[in-house]
Amino acid sequence: MTEGIPFAGEPADSQEAIMWATFQALQEHGYAGLSIQRIADESELSKSTFYHHFEGKEDLLLSFVDFMLTEFTRIFQLESTGDPAQDLETYISLLLGDFPDLPNAPANDEILATYMELRAQAIRDPEFREKFTETAEGFSAQLTGLIETGVEQGVFADVDPEQSAKFLLTIADGIILQNTTRNDDPMPLLRDAIDQYVEREILADDAT
Amino acid sequence: MTEGIPFAGEPADSQEAIMWATFQALQEHGYAGLSIQRIADESELSKSTFYHHFEGKEDLLLSFVDFMLTEFTRIFQLESTGDPAQDLETYISLLLGDFPDLPNAPANDEILATYMELRAQAIRDPEFREKFTETAEGFSAQLTGLIETGVEQGVFADVDPEQSAKFLLTIADGIILQNTTRNDDPMPLLRDAIDQYVEREILADDAT
Repeated sequence: MTEGIPFAGEPADSQEAIMWATFQALQEHGYAGLSIQRIADESELSKSTFYHHFEGKEDLLLSFVDFMLTEFTRIFQLESTGDPAQDLETYISLLLGDFPDLPNAPANDEILATYMELRAQAIRDPEFREKFTETAEGFSAQLTGLIETGVEQGVFADVDPEQSAKFLLTIADGIILQNTTRNDDPMPLLRDAIDQYVEREILADDAT
Repeated sequence: MTEGIPFAGEPADSQEAIMWATFQALQEHGYAGLSIQRIADESELSKSTFYHHFEGKEDLLLSFVDFMLTEFTRIFQLESTGDPAQDLETYISLLLGDFPDLPNAPANDEILATYMELRAQAIRDPEFREKFTETAEGFSAQLTGLIETGVEQGVFADVDPEQSAKFLLTIADGIILQNTTRNDDPMPLLRDAIDQYVEREILADDAT
C-alpha cells in the first residue's frame, strides 16, 4: 500500500489482495452486478480462497466497507502544519477526494463513485448504516478539533466549531453526491462555492 | 393523487397504480431486492399487466424515476407569495422533504430514502444519470430565478444567484444523504445550520 493513497501500490497479503479485487470488481460491475466469481476474476486468488476468508458476498462487502473507511480515516490523520487555515484547506481537499495523483493509483472519481455506491447501501442496511455513522462521528470530532484550534488561536471567526464542522462535512457530502450522480461536472463551481463559504464564514476578516 | 404530496391518495389509472406499487415495493425490499413479482404483490394488478406496460424491471424503474422526478418538479412549481424570503424558506423546506403531513401519505423519511436509493443508481447507470442531471438543472434554474428576484428587489444580499442556488441545492443534497445513511438523526442540527447560512449569506442585514 502506497502511503496515503487508497488502493495504490501492491497489496501486502491475501486479505488486502481480496480488498483490491473487490474494489476493481465494484468499479467494473457496480454493487448490483457483484459476485464472488467476478471479484475472484479480478485477482490471482481462487474462489475457494474467498470462501475461506468470508461467508459470502454480504460478509465480504461489509469487510470491504470496514477496510475502505479505515483507509479513509487513516488518510485523514493529518499532522498539523501549525496553520489552522492551511490545515482546514488540506482537510477540505481530502474530503472532496483530492488525493495526490500517483502512478498506479485509481482515479479519484472512481474512489468517490465506489464510496458513494457503498454508502447508498446504508439506506436499507443497518450494518452499513452503523459503520458510516461511526466513521462520520470520527470525522466530525476531528474537524471540530481543527476548527476549535483556529478559533482559540484567533485565526478563525468565533463560530460554533461542532456545528461548523458538521455543516462543512454535509456540504462535502452534497458535492460528492452531485459529482457522482450527474453528467454536468458540478465539482469546479461547487469547489469555488465551498472555498468562498470558508473564507467568508470561518476565516473571517475581523478575526484577530 | 392528492395535490402536492407524492404517492398520496388513490392512483388515477393502472399506470399510476403501478407507480404506487413500485414505491411500496422499493420501501419494503430496497432496490436490490426488487422484482416484478414483488411489485405486482403490492398492487391488485397481475404480473402480466406489468409486462404489458413495461419490458422488464429496468424499464419499469426508469419510468418510476421519471414519474418521481416529474412529481417533485410539479410540487416545486410554487406560486410566489410576493415575499422572496418567504418563498426561499418554503423552497428549502420542500428540498429537505418537509412535505405537509396528510393522512394516507407516506412518511417523508420514506420518500427521501427511496429518492436517494434511486439516485444512487445514477452512479453506474447513464440513463438514470441523465434524468437526475436534467431535473437538477430545472431546480437550479428555478431557485436561481427566485434568488434573482430577491436580489433585484433589494431584499437579498448582492449574491451571485446561480452560484448561491447551486450551493444551496448541494447543501440540501448533503443533508438528505446524511439523513438517509446515518443513525444519529443529523437533520435538526443541519436544518439550523442551513437556516443560519441563509440568514447570514443571503438575507443579509445590510441589504436594503
